[in-house]
Amino acid sequence: MPNSDGFMDAALAEAKDAAARGEVPIGAVLVVDGVIVARSGNRTRAENDVTAHAEIAVIRDAAAALGQERLSGADLYVTLEPCTMCAAAISFARIRRLYYGAEDPKGGAVDNGVRFFAQPTCHHAPEVYSGLGESEAAILLTSFFRSKRES
Amino acid sequence: MPNSDGFMDAALAEAKDAAARGEVPIGAVLVVDGVIVARSGNRTRAENDVTAHAEIAVIRDAAAALGQERLSGADLYVTLEPCTMCAAAISFARIRRLYYGAEDPKGGAVDNGVRFFAQPTCHHAPEVYSGLGESEAAILLTSFFRSKRES
Repeated sequence: MPNSDGFMDAALAEAKDAAARGEVPIGAVLVVDGVIVARSGNRTRAENDVTAHAEIAVIRDAAAALGQERLSGADLYVTLEPCTMCAAAISFARIRRLYYGAEDPKGGAVDNGVRFFAQPTCHHAPEVYSGLGESEAAILLTSFFRSKRES
Repeated sequence: MPNSDGFMDAALAEAKDAAARGEVPIGAVLVVDGVIVARSGNRTRAENDVTAHAEIAVIRDAAAALGQERLSGADLYVTLEPCTMCAAAISFARIRRLYYGAEDPKGGAVDNGVRFFAQPTCHHAPEVYSGLGESEAAILLTSFFRSKRES
Protein backbone atom coordinates (compact mmCIF):
# COMPACT_ATOMS: atom_id res chain seq x y z
CA MET A 1 0.00 0.00 0.00
CA PRO A 2 1.27 3.49 -0.80
CA ASN A 3 1.07 4.57 2.86
CA SER A 4 3.69 2.02 3.89
CA ASP A 5 6.25 4.71 3.07
CA GLY A 6 4.73 6.97 5.72
CA PHE A 7 4.00 9.96 3.49
CA MET A 8 0.31 10.11 4.37
CA ASP A 9 1.29 9.82 8.04
CA ALA A 10 3.48 12.89 7.53
CA ALA A 11 0.54 14.73 5.96
CA LEU A 12 -1.68 13.70 8.89
CA ALA A 13 0.93 15.05 11.30
CA GLU A 14 0.77 18.40 9.46
CA ALA A 15 -3.03 18.33 9.76
CA LYS A 16 -2.75 17.80 13.53
CA ASP A 17 -0.29 20.67 13.83
CA ALA A 18 -2.70 22.86 11.87
CA ALA A 19 -5.51 22.02 14.32
CA ALA A 20 -3.25 22.95 17.24
CA ARG A 21 -2.77 26.38 15.63
CA GLY A 22 -6.53 26.84 15.21
CA GLU A 23 -6.42 26.19 11.47
CA VAL A 24 -8.75 23.78 9.67
CA PRO A 25 -6.86 20.46 10.09
CA ILE A 26 -5.71 19.56 6.61
CA GLY A 27 -2.11 18.66 5.87
CA ALA A 28 -0.01 17.87 2.81
CA VAL A 29 3.47 16.79 1.82
CA LEU A 30 5.13 16.91 -1.58
CA VAL A 31 7.46 14.06 -2.50
CA VAL A 32 10.15 13.98 -5.19
CA ASP A 33 12.23 10.84 -5.75
CA GLY A 34 11.04 9.36 -2.45
CA VAL A 35 11.97 12.43 -0.40
CA ILE A 36 9.63 14.99 1.17
CA VAL A 37 10.59 18.36 -0.34
CA ALA A 38 7.79 20.40 1.28
CA ARG A 39 5.30 19.87 4.10
CA SER A 40 2.53 22.12 5.40
CA GLY A 41 -0.79 22.33 7.09
CA ASN A 42 -3.51 24.74 6.15
CA ARG A 43 -2.24 28.31 6.84
CA THR A 44 -5.17 30.49 5.82
CA ARG A 45 -5.68 32.11 9.21
CA ALA A 46 -2.02 32.60 10.09
CA GLU A 47 -1.28 34.21 6.73
CA ASN A 48 -4.60 36.01 6.16
CA ASP A 49 -4.64 34.27 2.82
CA VAL A 50 -7.62 32.30 1.53
CA THR A 51 -5.33 30.63 -1.00
CA ALA A 52 -2.99 29.20 1.65
CA HIS A 53 -4.49 25.71 1.62
CA ALA A 54 -2.05 22.91 2.49
CA GLU A 55 -1.76 21.78 -1.15
CA ILE A 56 -0.97 25.26 -2.47
CA ALA A 57 1.43 25.88 0.41
CA VAL A 58 3.51 22.80 -0.46
CA ILE A 59 3.40 23.51 -4.19
CA ARG A 60 4.67 27.05 -3.59
CA ASP A 61 7.29 26.00 -1.07
CA ALA A 62 8.58 23.19 -3.28
CA ALA A 63 8.71 25.38 -6.38
CA ALA A 64 10.63 28.04 -4.43
CA ALA A 65 13.03 25.45 -3.01
CA LEU A 66 13.61 23.76 -6.37
CA GLY A 67 13.67 27.01 -8.38
CA GLN A 68 11.12 25.80 -10.91
CA GLU A 69 7.47 26.50 -11.64
CA ARG A 70 6.43 23.02 -12.63
CA LEU A 71 6.83 19.96 -10.45
CA SER A 72 6.64 17.14 -12.98
CA GLY A 73 7.48 13.87 -11.26
CA ALA A 74 6.34 15.13 -7.86
CA ASP A 75 3.70 13.29 -5.83
CA LEU A 76 1.31 15.09 -3.50
CA TYR A 77 -0.15 13.51 -0.36
CA VAL A 78 -3.02 15.44 1.23
CA THR A 79 -5.43 14.42 3.98
CA LEU A 80 -8.61 15.71 2.30
CA GLU A 81 -9.88 15.67 -1.28
CA PRO A 82 -8.57 18.88 -2.90
CA CYS A 83 -11.00 21.74 -3.55
CA THR A 84 -11.57 23.37 -6.93
CA MET A 85 -8.76 25.91 -6.44
CA CYS A 86 -6.23 23.29 -5.35
CA ALA A 87 -7.20 20.76 -8.03
CA ALA A 88 -6.45 23.37 -10.69
CA ALA A 89 -3.17 24.35 -8.99
CA ILE A 90 -2.17 20.65 -8.89
CA SER A 91 -2.85 20.46 -12.61
CA PHE A 92 -0.87 23.64 -13.37
CA ALA A 93 2.09 22.34 -11.33
CA ARG A 94 2.06 19.11 -13.37
CA ILE A 95 1.93 16.94 -10.24
CA ARG A 96 2.39 13.29 -11.25
CA ARG A 97 0.36 11.48 -8.59
CA LEU A 98 -2.19 12.71 -6.08
CA TYR A 99 -2.91 10.66 -2.96
CA TYR A 100 -5.73 11.96 -0.80
CA GLY A 101 -7.38 10.78 2.41
CA ALA A 102 -11.06 11.56 2.98
CA GLU A 103 -13.53 12.60 0.30
CA ASP A 104 -15.12 16.04 0.55
CA PRO A 105 -18.61 16.04 -0.97
CA LYS A 106 -19.19 19.69 -0.01
CA GLY A 107 -16.04 21.22 -1.42
CA GLY A 108 -14.00 18.56 -3.21
CA ALA A 109 -13.26 18.83 -6.91
CA VAL A 110 -11.62 15.52 -7.78
CA ASP A 111 -14.26 12.82 -7.22
CA ASN A 112 -16.95 15.33 -6.23
CA GLY A 113 -18.03 18.77 -7.40
CA VAL A 114 -16.55 19.88 -10.71
CA ARG A 115 -14.35 16.75 -11.05
CA PHE A 116 -11.76 19.04 -12.58
CA PHE A 117 -9.29 16.43 -13.80
CA ALA A 118 -11.96 14.98 -16.11
CA GLN A 119 -12.85 18.34 -17.71
CA PRO A 120 -11.81 19.58 -21.17
CA THR A 121 -10.36 22.76 -19.58
CA CYS A 122 -7.96 20.62 -17.52
CA HIS A 123 -4.77 20.24 -19.52
CA HIS A 124 -2.84 17.94 -17.17
CA ALA A 125 -4.34 15.39 -14.78
CA PRO A 126 -2.38 13.50 -12.12
CA GLU A 127 -2.97 9.84 -11.35
CA VAL A 128 -5.32 9.83 -8.35
CA TYR A 129 -5.34 7.45 -5.37
CA SER A 130 -7.89 8.03 -2.61
CA GLY A 131 -8.89 6.63 0.75
CA LEU A 132 -5.39 6.62 2.20
CA GLY A 133 -5.56 7.49 5.93
CA GLU A 134 -9.19 8.35 5.30
CA SER A 135 -10.58 7.59 8.78
CA GLU A 136 -7.94 9.54 10.64
CA ALA A 137 -8.25 12.51 8.28
CA ALA A 138 -12.02 12.58 8.68
CA ILE A 139 -11.89 12.23 12.48
CA LEU A 140 -9.48 15.18 12.70
CA LEU A 141 -11.89 17.38 10.77
CA THR A 142 -15.01 16.23 12.61
CA SER A 143 -13.38 16.76 16.02
CA PHE A 144 -12.13 20.19 15.00
CA PHE A 145 -15.50 21.48 13.85
CA ARG A 146 -17.27 19.92 16.85
CA SER A 147 -14.91 21.70 19.24
CA LYS A 148 -15.48 24.97 17.33
CA ARG A 149 -19.25 24.63 17.72
CA GLU A 150 -18.93 23.89 21.42
CA SER A 151 -16.50 26.69 22.23
CA MET B 1 -20.41 51.90 -18.11
CA PRO B 2 -18.26 50.41 -15.36
CA ASN B 3 -15.03 51.16 -17.23
CA SER B 4 -15.65 54.90 -17.09
CA ASP B 5 -13.90 54.79 -13.71
CA GLY B 6 -10.75 53.51 -15.39
CA PHE B 7 -10.33 50.35 -13.33
CA MET B 8 -10.23 48.03 -16.33
CA ASP B 9 -7.72 50.40 -17.93
CA ALA B 10 -5.55 49.97 -14.84
CA ALA B 11 -5.85 46.18 -15.19
CA LEU B 12 -4.91 46.43 -18.88
CA ALA B 13 -1.85 48.50 -17.93
CA GLU B 14 -0.81 45.67 -15.57
CA ALA B 15 -1.29 43.18 -18.41
CA LYS B 16 1.00 45.26 -20.66
CA ASP B 17 3.64 45.45 -17.94
CA ALA B 18 3.41 41.66 -17.55
CA ALA B 19 4.04 41.20 -21.29
CA ALA B 20 7.09 43.47 -21.06
CA ARG B 21 8.47 41.15 -18.35
CA GLY B 22 7.87 38.06 -20.52
CA GLU B 23 4.85 36.97 -18.49
CA VAL B 24 1.53 35.98 -20.04
CA PRO B 25 -0.20 39.40 -20.36
CA ILE B 26 -3.05 39.28 -17.89
CA GLY B 27 -3.59 42.02 -15.33
CA ALA B 28 -5.90 42.68 -12.41
CA VAL B 29 -6.79 45.34 -9.87
CA LEU B 30 -8.77 45.02 -6.66
CA VAL B 31 -11.01 47.92 -5.69
CA VAL B 32 -12.49 48.72 -2.29
CA ASP B 33 -14.73 51.78 -1.83
CA GLY B 34 -13.70 53.17 -5.20
CA VAL B 35 -9.96 52.91 -4.48
CA ILE B 36 -7.47 50.43 -5.97
CA VAL B 37 -5.99 48.53 -3.01
CA ALA B 38 -3.89 46.05 -5.05
CA ARG B 39 -2.74 45.79 -8.66
CA SER B 40 -0.71 43.09 -10.40
CA GLY B 41 0.04 41.34 -13.61
CA ASN B 42 0.65 37.65 -13.94
CA ARG B 43 3.85 36.77 -11.99
CA THR B 44 4.17 33.03 -12.49
CA ARG B 45 7.58 33.15 -14.19
CA ALA B 46 9.15 35.80 -11.97
CA GLU B 47 8.08 33.98 -8.81
CA ASN B 48 8.40 30.38 -10.02
CA ASP B 49 4.84 29.98 -8.79
CA VAL B 50 2.06 28.47 -10.89
CA THR B 51 -0.48 30.01 -8.51
CA ALA B 52 0.74 33.59 -9.06
CA HIS B 53 -1.97 34.51 -11.54
CA ALA B 54 -2.94 38.20 -11.52
CA GLU B 55 -6.20 37.55 -9.65
CA ILE B 56 -4.54 35.54 -6.87
CA ALA B 57 -1.71 38.07 -6.65
CA VAL B 58 -4.13 40.95 -5.98
CA ILE B 59 -6.21 38.89 -3.55
CA ARG B 60 -3.07 38.00 -1.56
CA ASP B 61 -1.68 41.51 -1.69
CA ALA B 62 -4.97 43.11 -0.66
CA ALA B 63 -5.54 40.64 2.18
CA ALA B 64 -2.01 41.28 3.46
CA ALA B 65 -2.45 45.06 3.21
CA LEU B 66 -5.87 45.02 4.88
CA GLY B 67 -4.95 42.35 7.46
CA GLN B 68 -7.97 40.20 6.69
CA GLU B 69 -8.61 36.93 4.87
CA ARG B 70 -11.92 37.79 3.30
CA LEU B 71 -12.48 40.75 1.01
CA SER B 72 -16.25 41.19 1.20
CA GLY B 73 -17.22 44.38 -0.60
CA ALA B 74 -14.17 44.27 -2.86
CA ASP B 75 -14.49 44.33 -6.65
CA LEU B 76 -12.01 42.58 -8.92
CA TYR B 77 -11.19 43.77 -12.45
CA VAL B 78 -9.21 41.31 -14.57
CA THR B 79 -8.43 41.35 -18.28
CA LEU B 80 -9.22 37.66 -18.96
CA GLU B 81 -11.93 35.31 -17.73
CA PRO B 82 -10.58 33.70 -14.53
CA CYS B 83 -9.42 30.08 -14.64
CA THR B 84 -10.71 27.31 -12.36
CA MET B 85 -8.12 28.03 -9.65
CA CYS B 86 -8.79 31.77 -9.64
CA ALA B 87 -12.58 31.45 -9.79
CA ALA B 88 -12.47 29.35 -6.61
CA ALA B 89 -10.06 31.80 -4.93
CA ILE B 90 -12.42 34.68 -5.84
CA SER B 91 -15.25 32.75 -4.19
CA PHE B 92 -13.21 31.99 -1.04
CA ALA B 93 -12.22 35.67 -0.75
CA ARG B 94 -15.90 36.67 -0.93
CA ILE B 95 -15.28 39.14 -3.76
CA ARG B 96 -18.46 41.15 -4.37
CA ARG B 97 -18.22 41.88 -8.09
CA LEU B 98 -16.06 40.41 -10.83
CA TYR B 99 -15.45 42.39 -14.02
CA TYR B 100 -13.51 40.56 -16.69
CA GLY B 101 -12.39 41.42 -20.23
CA ALA B 102 -12.06 38.62 -22.78
CA GLU B 103 -13.61 35.18 -22.47
CA ASP B 104 -11.28 32.19 -22.29
CA PRO B 105 -12.92 29.11 -23.81
CA LYS B 106 -9.77 26.99 -23.27
CA GLY B 107 -9.15 27.72 -19.61
CA GLY B 108 -11.92 29.94 -18.25
CA ALA B 109 -14.17 28.76 -15.43
CA VAL B 110 -16.83 31.47 -15.17
CA ASP B 111 -18.78 31.40 -18.45
CA ASN B 112 -16.78 28.48 -19.85
CA GLY B 113 -15.33 25.25 -18.46
CA VAL B 114 -16.61 24.26 -15.04
CA ARG B 115 -18.68 27.47 -14.62
CA PHE B 116 -17.70 27.33 -10.98
CA PHE B 117 -19.97 30.06 -9.63
CA ALA B 118 -23.02 28.07 -10.72
CA GLN B 119 -21.93 24.84 -8.99
CA PRO B 120 -23.28 23.40 -5.71
CA THR B 121 -19.70 23.25 -4.34
CA CYS B 122 -19.38 27.03 -4.78
CA HIS B 123 -20.51 28.66 -1.54
CA HIS B 124 -20.17 32.32 -2.56
CA ALA B 125 -20.56 33.73 -6.06
CA PRO B 126 -19.72 37.30 -7.07
CA GLU B 127 -21.85 39.34 -9.45
CA VAL B 128 -20.17 38.93 -12.86
CA TYR B 129 -19.78 41.53 -15.62
CA SER B 130 -17.89 40.56 -18.76
CA GLY B 131 -16.71 42.06 -22.03
CA LEU B 132 -15.12 45.13 -20.46
CA GLY B 133 -11.97 46.06 -22.40
CA GLU B 134 -12.41 42.75 -24.19
CA SER B 135 -10.76 43.67 -27.51
CA GLU B 136 -7.66 45.18 -25.98
CA ALA B 137 -7.26 42.26 -23.57
CA ALA B 138 -7.58 39.73 -26.39
CA ILE B 139 -5.17 41.62 -28.68
CA LEU B 140 -2.54 41.69 -25.91
CA LEU B 141 -2.73 37.92 -25.52
CA THR B 142 -2.79 37.17 -29.26
CA SER B 143 0.22 39.42 -29.91
CA PHE B 144 2.13 37.89 -27.02
CA PHE B 145 1.67 34.31 -28.15
CA ARG B 146 2.35 35.23 -31.80
CA SER B 147 5.66 36.84 -30.82
CA LYS B 148 6.53 33.74 -28.75
CA ARG B 149 5.93 31.47 -31.74
CA GLU B 150 8.00 33.68 -34.03
CA SER B 151 10.94 34.07 -31.67
